[in-house]
Amino acid sequence: MSKLTDVPKRILIGRALRSDRLGETLLPKRVALPVFASDPLSSVAYAPGEVLLVLSVAGLSAYHFSPWIAAAVVVLMLTVVASYRQNVHAYPSGGGDYEVAGTNLGRRAGLTVASALLVDYVLTVAVSISAGIENLGSAVPFVVEHKVACAIGVIVLLTLMNLRGVKESGTLFAIPTYVFVTGIFAMIAWGAFRGLVLGDEMRAPTADLEIEPEHPGLAGFALVFLLLRAFSSGCAALTGVEALSNGVPAFRRPKARNAATTLALMGLLAVTMFCGIIALAAVTKVRMAENPAEDLLRDGTPVGADYIQHPVISQVAEAVFGHGSVLFILLAAATALVLFLAANTAYNGFPLLGSILAQDRYLPRQLHTRGDRLAFSNGIVLLAGAAGLLVWVYGADSTRLIQLYIVGVFVAFTLSQSGMVRHWNRLLATETDRTARRHMIRSRAINAFGACLTGLVLVVVLVTKFTHGAWVALLGMCIFYGTMTAIRRHYDRVFEEIAAPEAPGDDMVRPSRVHSVVLVSKIHRPALRALAYAKLMRSDSLEALTVNVDPEETRDLREEWERRGIDVPLKVLDSPYREITRPVIEYVKSLRRESPRDVVSVIIPEYVVGHWYEHLLHNQSALRLKGRLLFTPGVMVTSVPYQLRSSEAAKRRARKRQEWTAPGSVRRGPAERTKETPANSRSDT
Amino acid sequence: MSKLTDVPKRILIGRALRSDRLGETLLPKRVALPVFASDPLSSVAYAPGEVLLVLSVAGLSAYHFSPWIAAAVVVLMLTVVASYRQNVHAYPSGGGDYEVAGTNLGRRAGLTVASALLVDYVLTVAVSISAGIENLGSAVPFVVEHKVACAIGVIVLLTLMNLRGVKESGTLFAIPTYVFVTGIFAMIAWGAFRGLVLGDEMRAPTADLEIEPEHPGLAGFALVFLLLRAFSSGCAALTGVEALSNGVPAFRRPKARNAATTLALMGLLAVTMFCGIIALAAVTKVRMAENPAEDLLRDGTPVGADYIQHPVISQVAEAVFGHGSVLFILLAAATALVLFLAANTAYNGFPLLGSILAQDRYLPRQLHTRGDRLAFSNGIVLLAGAAGLLVWVYGADSTRLIQLYIVGVFVAFTLSQSGMVRHWNRLLATETDRTARRHMIRSRAINAFGACLTGLVLVVVLVTKFTHGAWVALLGMCIFYGTMTAIRRHYDRVFEEIAAPEAPGDDMVRPSRVHSVVLVSKIHRPALRALAYAKLMRSDSLEALTVNVDPEETRDLREEWERRGIDVPLKVLDSPYREITRPVIEYVKSLRRESPRDVVSVIIPEYVVGHWYEHLLHNQSALRLKGRLLFTPGVMVTSVPYQLRSSEAAKRRARKRQEWTAPGSVRRGPAERTKETPANSRSDT
Repeated sequence: MSKLTDVPKRILIGRALRSDRLGETLLPKRVALPVFASDPLSSVAYAPGEVLLVLSVAGLSAYHFSPWIAAAVVVLMLTVVASYRQNVHAYPSGGGDYEVAGTNLGRRAGLTVASALLVDYVLTVAVSISAGIENLGSAVPFVVEHKVACAIGVIVLLTLMNLRGVKESGTLFAIPTYVFVTGIFAMIAWGAFRGLVLGDEMRAPTADLEIEPEHPGLAGFALVFLLLRAFSSGCAALTGVEALSNGVPAFRRPKARNAATTLALMGLLAVTMFCGIIALAAVTKVRMAENPAEDLLRDGTPVGADYIQHPVISQVAEAVFGHGSVLFILLAAATALVLFLAANTAYNGFPLLGSILAQDRYLPRQLHTRGDRLAFSNGIVLLAGAAGLLVWVYGADSTRLIQLYIVGVFVAFTLSQSGMVRHWNRLLATETDRTARRHMIRSRAINAFGACLTGLVLVVVLVTKFTHGAWVALLGMCIFYGTMTAIRRHYDRVFEEIAAPEAPGDDMVRPSRVHSVVLVSKIHRPALRALAYAKLMRSDSLEALTVNVDPEETRDLREEWERRGIDVPLKVLDSPYREITRPVIEYVKSLRRESPRDVVSVIIPEYVVGHWYEHLLHNQSALRLKGRLLFTPGVMVTSVPYQLRSSEAAKRRARKRQEWTAPGSVRRGPAERTKETPANSRSDT
Repeated sequence: MSKLTDVPKRILIGRALRSDRLGETLLPKRVALPVFASDPLSSVAYAPGEVLLVLSVAGLSAYHFSPWIAAAVVVLMLTVVASYRQNVHAYPSGGGDYEVAGTNLGRRAGLTVASALLVDYVLTVAVSISAGIENLGSAVPFVVEHKVACAIGVIVLLTLMNLRGVKESGTLFAIPTYVFVTGIFAMIAWGAFRGLVLGDEMRAPTADLEIEPEHPGLAGFALVFLLLRAFSSGCAALTGVEALSNGVPAFRRPKARNAATTLALMGLLAVTMFCGIIALAAVTKVRMAENPAEDLLRDGTPVGADYIQHPVISQVAEAVFGHGSVLFILLAAATALVLFLAANTAYNGFPLLGSILAQDRYLPRQLHTRGDRLAFSNGIVLLAGAAGLLVWVYGADSTRLIQLYIVGVFVAFTLSQSGMVRHWNRLLATETDRTARRHMIRSRAINAFGACLTGLVLVVVLVTKFTHGAWVALLGMCIFYGTMTAIRRHYDRVFEEIAAPEAPGDDMVRPSRVHSVVLVSKIHRPALRALAYAKLMRSDSLEALTVNVDPEETRDLREEWERRGIDVPLKVLDSPYREITRPVIEYVKSLRRESPRDVVSVIIPEYVVGHWYEHLLHNQSALRLKGRLLFTPGVMVTSVPYQLRSSEAAKRRARKRQEWTAPGSVRRGPAERTKETPANSRSDT
């Protein structure tokens, strides 16, 4: 494992960042911005193109609507950012949309948001990586020729990195994000300078193509529907905005204010970049179509199936910087890298949300404890598997994947904002201070407007995209919702079943005595140790037990027992079928039948070995017996381990595993050290 | 599982046989014959054809050698049967060739035989099922058109049946075997009657074909080599003879004599059937070729790739009984069924041999205990996987698979017979009684002749078949040999490491006191039970331990602890990173550091649930902690189980599983009940 991922890790992350221990410190705004904004900012790499794509259905003339759609997206973006600034102030605990919806609208709303976000994480991986591959492909044709394989390769790489536990570092995010943002702004500025000042004519590589409209002369309702669909696609630019509200605890103080400022900055950057790209696309005459092979014409004939439609950002960059120029290649690389980082964001967000859901018992409890590698690993593998499946099914085509993408985000937006309205209503009911009330009313208005607008967009997205793939996302949400409800129901049932009775001794029979039984097969060190420990325990009675599988071995055991003068009676159980489990279970049951209030303590010597294949060679009967004994009431099962020399290897491995860092720790902020329960306090009652 | 296999099981076995509990009774000869002879007798279904196939390389004229080759096979068969009759008398314990070779020639020879037999079992499955499919295919064309799929289907079916634990019943074997034997004899008799008395001309469906010899006019050394190769192929008829020597304990008394008689009877039947089929094939002019598509000519042109070469037995049956006649179809079905039963034999023999090898610590110990379902399951899956792979790689072509088959058998034959010679030498060295000596000298002569002849055949097989596939079998043997040696070495090393020191307290530090720690997360029934049990144990000190993962929960726990007045001190460990394992391990280590001679007893309340998915939701932290604690010296780990209601389901399943019968029990004979250690005896020392 170590060998396998070190080289790409070094390439992707750089060696020096290893010691960067940001996970334990708080983030200043300049680092928080790239950490949280790589996801929303990277979406400007595909969102403008999606708008043009959809418009092309009505032909080139529909491109004239693109500024209006951009304007609508900008309004929406500003609304959402303004709304979330309220969230951040009101809920600085980092619970995010799930907490807001759950607290204010009830469990079901919370769970719906959680399901939507989980689906969203899967799609973030699928869409971002597909788009990243497409951007990289505009500079390196090989990549786009083997799109699916490359995309799945990147997923595998990210998965391995996260399974190993990469320490997410601010610098890791900062460099590509700032390079990307700078690059886009440089492109916009240089484009504007060339166009407005120098008067250059910049032409995108597709400027000479014509578009054969699928539905020429679209008008009336059909045109409105198409425009709404284009707008829905443009809304992809908003994905990832909600993630910052989970990350407030990671900010430097004043946490809420810094987070809100970062959010505003992020919104501003995103909006400017989005509009700049749309404008440059119009100026450089970028031509994109939903079915480029048929609908794009070169000199009157379709371009054909082997035409590769490059992303809008790379077409614009080519027009502004020139094909193959250093800046062009740098921007393509930075875009791809930021998109991959956005995908990595989901690898962090998924377990983070999982841990919050686990705390509320919607997911297995062990997800709650940080650094539980096994639990996180399962989550990461689940995420990667689902994303990989989507990438494979949809041929790593970001355009088709985006159809699924936006539903989840807007479900979260709408429910979260509605929850915020309730939140302010609740506070207003008791608040008397005038300034505070005015403040709250203002916040409520912002959130109410946000809720209405995002709700409207959700309806638009559902209507325009349902058959295009949104149903897949809804299905995914239902599956998550159903699973989590079932888990919660199970926990509730168990909780009820095991609740301690109020009056002590209510229906719990008080055990009276302990009868200890040491299982022995041979006289060897593990058995002697088990006997020694058992004697220390001073139970009411103690005997050694052996199962007579081989008469000769049993005879030898008896003889040695006597010879050594072991002062514990040895009982031999006959086993005509050479079984071990059944005779022991029967014997234990018979002891319990004789005196039902007694507890039987079964003590099993156990070998501890270092490798799984060694494990196959030992303890198998003991393990099976233990498993069966657990089902027998009134029994306690004790393992007395005997560490073989080879167990050292496993110990070393376990120690190494403990140094693993759970993904997402940088954006979760440091764990709170509590003052209330100082370590090693002892309270006797 | 139950639903899945019940219907085919009923079809294959019939419902009424369920109650047949032959596994617990001894076999009379008339039942033992079909049980043990299905394997060797079924080989006459393919062995004669293989002889013709090889001869065809030299052209039709070489077919004249077939009676001579048949004669050689008969001599060999009679020799082997005579030899094994000596084995059966000398080693009635059922250890078979492995025991004979191991006892007389040393560990390595024994292990070589065991490896050869294990490979042989895999090939028995592959060859028998492929041949069965081919025979069935002569009556049902669909089957042979989807040869590989059908063959793998049968493997899967047999595997499922054996995994579930089919009670092997004598009747199950008796009916198809006797139908098969009767059918073949009826065919030979009716053929002889038609040919000799009625003077009918019976013509096989291939009688009109010509053979284009691959090497026409073969003579001298090349011809001898070809004849030897044909003989080697004919030796396939001998496979399975050795299996009876493992089954002596299953016979009625006098075991050895009955087994020897059965062996003789089996040899006689096999020889007669083999010769009868060869003779009928010659009379009815069966034409077979190694490459039928090219080398068989109809009216001078090759028959082409879609020609299906039916097995010799079905061609002869067609000539004698008529195509599509009831008897023809009955015989084809019985042949296929007997071949499948022969394959099933391997499913029984593999774990049987495995259990003997496990006793000698060449395989994991748990294979030794009967009825250990998990262990047997692994063996069955391994067998099925290897056989399935071979079937797939070799396209379920019995002819190609047979090239691999015979090596293993003859390795076993040769080593076993050599071992017998040593055995008699050893006995003769001390024996003084004249009659006994004469008897032994006679037996030694038979075994010596057997060893020489089978050794010679082994050399012939290796020389003529090595490049045709025998190397694959040898490779398989090496792999088994290597694995088993490594396992034995591991056990020996551990055995040495854990050997009890002679002087008590040699280097084992005697522990002085026990400090008990009960892990508590909440106050619920499992925790209360664990506390109650822990108090009963009267260790030197007792405390409850909780890890502060969530300060609020910890506070609640403390309050309730005090409120309930639990008289055990509660210790709280701080865990800034919400970990559980690490703080507990560190604490236990610190206790051990304070007083190194103390033992720490960690008591963990454990939920017992009924389904694996429930298990994922509970105990995960406890399990991980237990795993880590086992590596910490001076610790004993106690589980106090709390059975949730859902655990009843698992209990029922476990009980059902216990009624499972290990495959191969019928041929292993009943387990010996030993008089020495009566059940529930108690010996206090």
